[in-house]
Amino acid sequence: MRVLGIDPGLTRCGVGVVDGSVGGTLTMVAAGAVRTPADDELPARLLGIERGVEQWLDEHRPDAVAVERVFAQHNVRTVMGTAQAGAIAVVCAARRGLPVALHTPSEVKAAITGSGRADKAQVGAMVARILRLDGPPRPADAADAVALAICHLWRGSAQARVARARQEFARRIELARQANGL
Amino acid sequence: MRVLGIDPGLTRCGVGVVDGSVGGTLTMVAAGAVRTPADDELPARLLGIERGVEQWLDEHRPDAVAVERVFAQHNVRTVMGTAQAGAIAVVCAARRGLPVALHTPSEVKAAITGSGRADKAQVGAMVARILRLDGPPRPADAADAVALAICHLWRGSAQARVARARQEFARRIELARQANGL
Repeated sequence: MRVLGIDPGLTRCGVGVVDGSVGGTLTMVAAGAVRTPADDELPARLLGIERGVEQWLDEHRPDAVAVERVFAQHNVRTVMGTAQAGAIAVVCAARRGLPVALHTPSEVKAAITGSGRADKAQVGAMVARILRLDGPPRPADAADAVALAICHLWRGSAQARVARARQEFARRIELARQANGL
Repeated sequence: MRVLGIDPGLTRCGVGVVDGSVGGTLTMVAAGAVRTPADDELPARLLGIERGVEQWLDEHRPDAVAVERVFAQHNVRTVMGTAQAGAIAVVCAARRGLPVALHTPSEVKAAITGSGRADKAQVGAMVARILRLDGPPRPADAADAVALAICHLWRGSAQARVARARQEFARRIELARQANGL
């Protein structure tokens, strides 16, 4: 399964593509950023983000897209840009019928480092270790996007394990009912 | 000139189309709302807004689009949805090469009522008067969208008047220079 992680922002959208399977090793396919000039008007910037995200989708054909879920607890101006850029990323994926998952920054940190309060350096170090890289992907937004993709693969796996356990439980109940003629 | 005003929101995007010319009367062509179900996931909702805005653009072929400029002074959750829906509206227009203008709520209120602090009822009443309607367009978001379109037509006219005055001034300076052999 291939996941495109997107860490949205007007100036820099971090993007990262990770291949992985349940219980298998994870491989980083590509990482980078979609940038738009800060002195461009908003319509041109959003159009630039749309084109950039489309290019990453065309080139890497992911099976799912993971986008950071934005909360407004930070700087208000930044958050507005993040919400706008994130909306464009989400709609690009949804238009292609790709499943889109939204993960909060603390879900990503907890998935990667075990702590929802880990700092950027710690997340970057763990991303490098998990993917067997010499160092965290650059720029920092790319590392965050790769972390999102890893989080999605692992959370998806965990959710799949829970779903399989539920099916197995239901199957045993059914067998027990049959054995007892119920 | 035909302007599509869009008052963005995840649950309801107000939309209003107004025809007008500099110094001429304004006519409301259509008003309504693009709605998305509150219990749908964000990707489906943004996709629904994109489809709805595209339909309004296809049907009414505006020359320009005016979208409310969002500030984060209000309820944080609402503002995030407004920013996301607004980003979709802006990119739909920009993709077609249409000029997109962003006006703040107080610019719109000031343009329509003379006061940047006017309430919704006052704006609605003035919209009805300006467009010679029996009452404000319904729902309320449609009235706000129509007000945005009127604001855009009038601000555009004012800007055009200033530009013409500048040109006339430059022409007279040039004539004076020629008359004096400079």
